[in-house]
Amino acid sequence: MKHNFGAGPGILPQEVLKQAAAGVLDFNGIGLSILEISHRSPEFEGVLNEAVKLVKEELGVPEGYSVLFLQGGASTQFAMVPYNLLPEGGKAAYVESGVWANKALKEAKYFGDVEVIATAKDKNFTYIPKDFTVPADAAYLHLTSNNTIYGTQLQEFPASPIPVVCDMSSDIFSRKVNVADFGLIYAGAQKNMGPAGTTLVIVKDELLGKADRKIPSMFNYQAQIDGGSMYNTPPVFAIYVSMLTLRWLKAKGGVEAIQKENEEKARVLYEEIDRNPLFKGVCVPEDRSHMNVCFLVENPEHEKPFLKFAEERGIEGIKGHRSAGGFRASIYNALPITSVYVLVEAMQEFAEKNK
Amino acid sequence: MKHNFGAGPGILPQEVLKQAAAGVLDFNGIGLSILEISHRSPEFEGVLNEAVKLVKEELGVPEGYSVLFLQGGASTQFAMVPYNLLPEGGKAAYVESGVWANKALKEAKYFGDVEVIATAKDKNFTYIPKDFTVPADAAYLHLTSNNTIYGTQLQEFPASPIPVVCDMSSDIFSRKVNVADFGLIYAGAQKNMGPAGTTLVIVKDELLGKADRKIPSMFNYQAQIDGGSMYNTPPVFAIYVSMLTLRWLKAKGGVEAIQKENEEKARVLYEEIDRNPLFKGVCVPEDRSHMNVCFLVENPEHEKPFLKFAEERGIEGIKGHRSAGGFRASIYNALPITSVYVLVEAMQEFAEKNK
Repeated sequence: MKHNFGAGPGILPQEVLKQAAAGVLDFNGIGLSILEISHRSPEFEGVLNEAVKLVKEELGVPEGYSVLFLQGGASTQFAMVPYNLLPEGGKAAYVESGVWANKALKEAKYFGDVEVIATAKDKNFTYIPKDFTVPADAAYLHLTSNNTIYGTQLQEFPASPIPVVCDMSSDIFSRKVNVADFGLIYAGAQKNMGPAGTTLVIVKDELLGKADRKIPSMFNYQAQIDGGSMYNTPPVFAIYVSMLTLRWLKAKGGVEAIQKENEEKARVLYEEIDRNPLFKGVCVPEDRSHMNVCFLVENPEHEKPFLKFAEERGIEGIKGHRSAGGFRASIYNALPITSVYVLVEAMQEFAEKNK
Repeated sequence: MKHNFGAGPGILPQEVLKQAAAGVLDFNGIGLSILEISHRSPEFEGVLNEAVKLVKEELGVPEGYSVLFLQGGASTQFAMVPYNLLPEGGKAAYVESGVWANKALKEAKYFGDVEVIATAKDKNFTYIPKDFTVPADAAYLHLTSNNTIYGTQLQEFPASPIPVVCDMSSDIFSRKVNVADFGLIYAGAQKNMGPAGTTLVIVKDELLGKADRKIPSMFNYQAQIDGGSMYNTPPVFAIYVSMLTLRWLKAKGGVEAIQKENEEKARVLYEEIDRNPLFKGVCVPEDRSHMNVCFLVENPEHEKPFLKFAEERGIEGIKGHRSAGGFRASIYNALPITSVYVLVEAMQEFAEKNK
């Protein structure tokens, strides 16, 4: 049995994988695979409509927002956001809370001025910058809710006089958020929503059409809204598996229920990191992520042996990102708490053997 | 048994569907699904490398070209091509052979001047325009090799003094082409290469970096080449299934062998259309597509009954596109000739009953 702590594309529920495999062979008993039906078929339209409905339900998306399933990952959103929301000659405000935030702001520079209003670069992104003033004359404020590489997470969103755009790629559907506080939310599917290959965008309609730019159709949110996420052929299978994952989430009790589980998983793991003399946390405790738990060994000589020790117990994907080192256990929605117990036990056994 | 004549996302080989379903449950026996492994894992890198290698082998891609698996479909290429290849103040030449060519040239207008050097709009795109001069001062000539909606296909590519960019979405891997004759080839996967969700791009390296534009990373071919199609998380599953489909193609004898089969399928079907007094072809015979066979009933009252008659025999997806009407039988690589025989037989039986 494998315990998949990979940072993404990450673990999906076993039940969803079984349903997805069945759909590849024969979708809902129609005698054709989900991979070979038209995106204009009633079958796929049903899938897309249900996926949109589940997003709205599970996140409590209010009226006046559109829900899109696009392609190209969050990295495409790094460019689409300023393309659509940043007027010529305008500026946007970015909080640089990690590598992904940095990539986002670099892409925005292709479209206008970028004001980095806060950064955590001075301490290698081990904390969430909180001490900043949001400039009222910027087109939007860009935030990253969870920093996958360093394991920090915004526990509270700052108040803002301008629309807030948030990259929630690695913690969407893991906890309650108030969508009405945001102008635009985007998230690559491959952590908590489904497989790689589709990107969720939730956008407040009234923000669009104001930047006065000429935007090619595929990069234009309004064209994508008008096409109902089918301006062109959508990534059928990735949307299908996302829909199945959202169904699974709903059946589990939704975001509220999963948030409790996620908090418990994080609590158990951080408690062991803080207690175990061989290990230590990386980030400022108050900013620790409930999705990506980063930790180090006190003695660098223990790093490789512990990785091996863990792998022998079926623990996969805990090697830290190449730019952060150490370990990173990603504990996304689909990871059962039993896998966390297995990791904690491995840490305890390893400590026992290396006293 | 279903006979899938759908125009796309279209039929995939049964063998590929079985392998894909198995990979969703457990990829190559590693105990994890292809949907939940890192794109940086050796397992996925093996998949991507093999996919690129198979593209090069099957199409005979010469040195000096890069092969990319991107997202966003051909529609994203409609914008990326001029973004990368059309200099500020420059112009591009387009042949308007159908609706998709028209969409491509409209997107190019966001980036510069577009000269439509030939169009078949006067006869509702039922022929391939051939009588044109390619302007030597344009940055590139854009062609569409196969027009899915109307069922026409370029049987010979025109000589060009400037680089040729070709949308081969609906006939790539169906016949031999000389890649060296092209500056850039692109194709959405969902006809002959795999499922919806990835787009193949083959680009001559020396054409890049000349347009002197500042291009956001995700839309920049050079950034995608530098990242080896992994500038960001790629559409893992769509690439996996494309790789499996290319393996299947190779095992069948490659493009040369499939081309013979495709020609035979087309011959059998067009012969029946021309012979059967109830049906007639749509396009100029010399420009008929070997991928999308469009036909009409002589008596419009036969249209709905024939559709029903065919559906009762398991024949799926032959309703014509809403902008063309009539029937369209797509006979992509994975469609067995036995399905064509079933359709021909249905046409004959229907004619017999409606004499």
